[in-house]
Amino acid sequence: MPEGSFSALDFMFHPRSIAVVGASTQDGPGSFVAATKEMGFNGDLYPVNPKAEEIAGLKCYPNLTAIPGHVDHVISSVPLRFVEGLMDECVAKAVKVVHFFTAGFSETGDEDATALEARILQRAADAGIRVIGPNCMGLYSPASGLSFMPFLPTDPGPVAMLSQSGANAGEFCRTGAVRGLRYSKVVSYGNGTDVRESELLEYCAEDPETSVIACYIEGITDGAHFMRALRKAAAAKPVVILKGGRTEAGSRATASHTGSLAGSLQVFDAAVRQAGAVRVDRMEELVDQVVAFRYLPKLAGPRAGIVGGGGGYSVLASDEIGASGLEMPTLPADIQQKLHDFTPTAGTSVRNPVDTSVGWGPDGLKPMLDTIRIVAESPNIDYILYHTSYSWGAMRAEGPSIVEVASEAAQKLGEVGKESGKPIVCVARIPTTEMGMAGTLAFQQNVADAGLPVFNSVRDATLAVQRVLTWQASRS
Amino acid sequence: MPEGSFSALDFMFHPRSIAVVGASTQDGPGSFVAATKEMGFNGDLYPVNPKAEEIAGLKCYPNLTAIPGHVDHVISSVPLRFVEGLMDECVAKAVKVVHFFTAGFSETGDEDATALEARILQRAADAGIRVIGPNCMGLYSPASGLSFMPFLPTDPGPVAMLSQSGANAGEFCRTGAVRGLRYSKVVSYGNGTDVRESELLEYCAEDPETSVIACYIEGITDGAHFMRALRKAAAAKPVVILKGGRTEAGSRATASHTGSLAGSLQVFDAAVRQAGAVRVDRMEELVDQVVAFRYLPKLAGPRAGIVGGGGGYSVLASDEIGASGLEMPTLPADIQQKLHDFTPTAGTSVRNPVDTSVGWGPDGLKPMLDTIRIVAESPNIDYILYHTSYSWGAMRAEGPSIVEVASEAAQKLGEVGKESGKPIVCVARIPTTEMGMAGTLAFQQNVADAGLPVFNSVRDATLAVQRVLTWQASRS
Repeated sequence: MPEGSFSALDFMFHPRSIAVVGASTQDGPGSFVAATKEMGFNGDLYPVNPKAEEIAGLKCYPNLTAIPGHVDHVISSVPLRFVEGLMDECVAKAVKVVHFFTAGFSETGDEDATALEARILQRAADAGIRVIGPNCMGLYSPASGLSFMPFLPTDPGPVAMLSQSGANAGEFCRTGAVRGLRYSKVVSYGNGTDVRESELLEYCAEDPETSVIACYIEGITDGAHFMRALRKAAAAKPVVILKGGRTEAGSRATASHTGSLAGSLQVFDAAVRQAGAVRVDRMEELVDQVVAFRYLPKLAGPRAGIVGGGGGYSVLASDEIGASGLEMPTLPADIQQKLHDFTPTAGTSVRNPVDTSVGWGPDGLKPMLDTIRIVAESPNIDYILYHTSYSWGAMRAEGPSIVEVASEAAQKLGEVGKESGKPIVCVARIPTTEMGMAGTLAFQQNVADAGLPVFNSVRDATLAVQRVLTWQASRS
Repeated sequence: MPEGSFSALDFMFHPRSIAVVGASTQDGPGSFVAATKEMGFNGDLYPVNPKAEEIAGLKCYPNLTAIPGHVDHVISSVPLRFVEGLMDECVAKAVKVVHFFTAGFSETGDEDATALEARILQRAADAGIRVIGPNCMGLYSPASGLSFMPFLPTDPGPVAMLSQSGANAGEFCRTGAVRGLRYSKVVSYGNGTDVRESELLEYCAEDPETSVIACYIEGITDGAHFMRALRKAAAAKPVVILKGGRTEAGSRATASHTGSLAGSLQVFDAAVRQAGAVRVDRMEELVDQVVAFRYLPKLAGPRAGIVGGGGGYSVLASDEIGASGLEMPTLPADIQQKLHDFTPTAGTSVRNPVDTSVGWGPDGLKPMLDTIRIVAESPNIDYILYHTSYSWGAMRAEGPSIVEVASEAAQKLGEVGKESGKPIVCVARIPTTEMGMAGTLAFQQNVADAGLPVFNSVRDATLAVQRVLTWQASRS
């Protein structure tokens, strides 16, 4: 199959049967059997461990060869000294893909370990077996019932994530999930001795189940291939890249982590920009940017209408607008008058930013929603930036629960957004209490269900919006 | 009394009696009676409201004059049209301080309202009454039983906070509280028509109950006085300033908020630097910086030993070190060897950053703590940066609870820090579940109890540490 053909990789995400060799009898990050079961894999799932009879309620086999049926996909959790033997078994069993959770290969810098990795790769290539890893978590794809960790969403969605780090893949998926991200194909490929970013980008570019691509990349092995793949992917859909090892200190760390040579950030950055992808600096920004691409419609421009409770917050929100290069025009006189008639409270600003009640008064959410409706009418506003917090309101003893208020607020924001035709960018500040967390999680989930993006701070929101605008401009 | 004398303001924080005029019968941000009662004020507390018999269990008076005893401190919650009448009553009653929660004065930009503010001030000055505000929350000082909001810590501490915004003062106090900050004197002074930043800085400089000063300032009225006051305060203790209106957009917002002319950030910034204070850009940074000054001992240098779980996190932590200008030297061979003997796990880096188990394995916290002990022994490390998360572990069904594990981890970190003599800077990433929040809050509280600083991200930690080092250097 030619480089970058869709079918060259698609079979990898649709195994009919999986064997977990060296399956852990304990729960935790390495318990692939439990995680795969939990994800609802409907093919055959075979734990392999000579020391166990049964794992996660499934019959356990002493070795790969002992499995009676065919095995498409092998997950290797065996210690390093067993991998060559396992590879022989995989060849004999005509396996299609081997994922090495097993670590201790080239990333250690050890010569023997590096040679072992090369031998394994060669043996696999000769037999037509694709290798994921080593030193990685492998695949998470809810639509196919694949998972590398427990407690990930079981419903699929349009976000693909390609990562050299398993921990970072998990962190991305968990933190993105509470903000409404759901996933098509997540690949933790570690040392990337065979399958890695370039081929995966080409695949994701064509994958109809993927509409946004997130990457955590520590190093590139084939720069020319990477550029071709990145151009193809970025032309097809938004691609957001977090580069591990962007500093000299980080670059030393990538060498120990996945054996990657991080290379020059300047070169990498130029390549990303040229391809039309978006580079971010932090895991939090990667989640934010994907949330923005997933939930923001095409923006008409940079002009924000800021609505939220608290004069001081409004000032700081305005500073974030100013610092990010976005705009916050003064509202026209007629809009100001409408707001003024409607919120006669002394000390309330109606120019932009607009202070509003936070939804706990006797009129509930109505003042806040009406305020947003009026601001959205303003012809010099391209989108609303609504900021709130669920730490304070959560402390009230009486009235509806924080979860009820937060959920209703989010749902109504969705309705107002639809009516007004102006995007609403939501911010719920990080809570400081358990009850505040419950309210915040409810708000985030309902905001996402309503099709709106939600961020942890105005700064995070403005950064993501600004990057979407830059990306839009680069494509027009 | 001369400008800046301690006793010119100290009486303000020690009223023997308080009257809340226009006292709210509802709970919420404006319920000063309930908040003051909750804070354990042990003087006389008089609600005044002609429409109520009793508020928060206290006898309510129809007006100020009807109160039989002496009144030191008046909190005005009356509508704007009643403030002149109230001022007359305050003069008649020989009140010492009036705090105007009442808003709608000069911050509206309205000519009449501005003139009213001036008249009120003049009337107060003629009668020797000090004015806090208008358009603000007033005082929070647990040692004196003063509070402007419910649910603030009732135990005092060494952090003073001076703020033109009541919402920002509350946000600072609540978010700081979960990270171990406790407060001496918090003043929300709004429009600052009388008492404001300069005099308060001079007071805090001398206040024996204050060892760190945080400020949220939108505008300065008397630049020369501000410089004298800031120099005096910053010479005595760390002063951290968040400037609202640092951008053109933010500056327009401060005009509507507290009627402040934000002025040039360049000038402000130069003044702050010259005085030896520290300027930050965001509320989150203000909290972070005060946490750092409160809980970090004098640092020997910029060299971090990074310890935490997850290779990808370690890489990103290293990038934050690199980006912040801190250092992360490779550990000496003997330390690496010790770590290697001790953590033989393949794929685990021991050079710096050092990967470690996260504390959920069969050996519990021991591997993590031993790792930190060994890294702290390294002569080329000035402090440990330990990063963790309580979202993932919280999902385990068996074993000790997340709150138990997190609390024990924090306590043990405190012990290791003491034994090793090297500061430990802790990072607990923002949780994504309610259980994770419970664990994170327990970790934060116990870390602070153990005398260590804790941050929400490695980036936040590196920024705060770097600023402490710069501040230290400026004073040596």
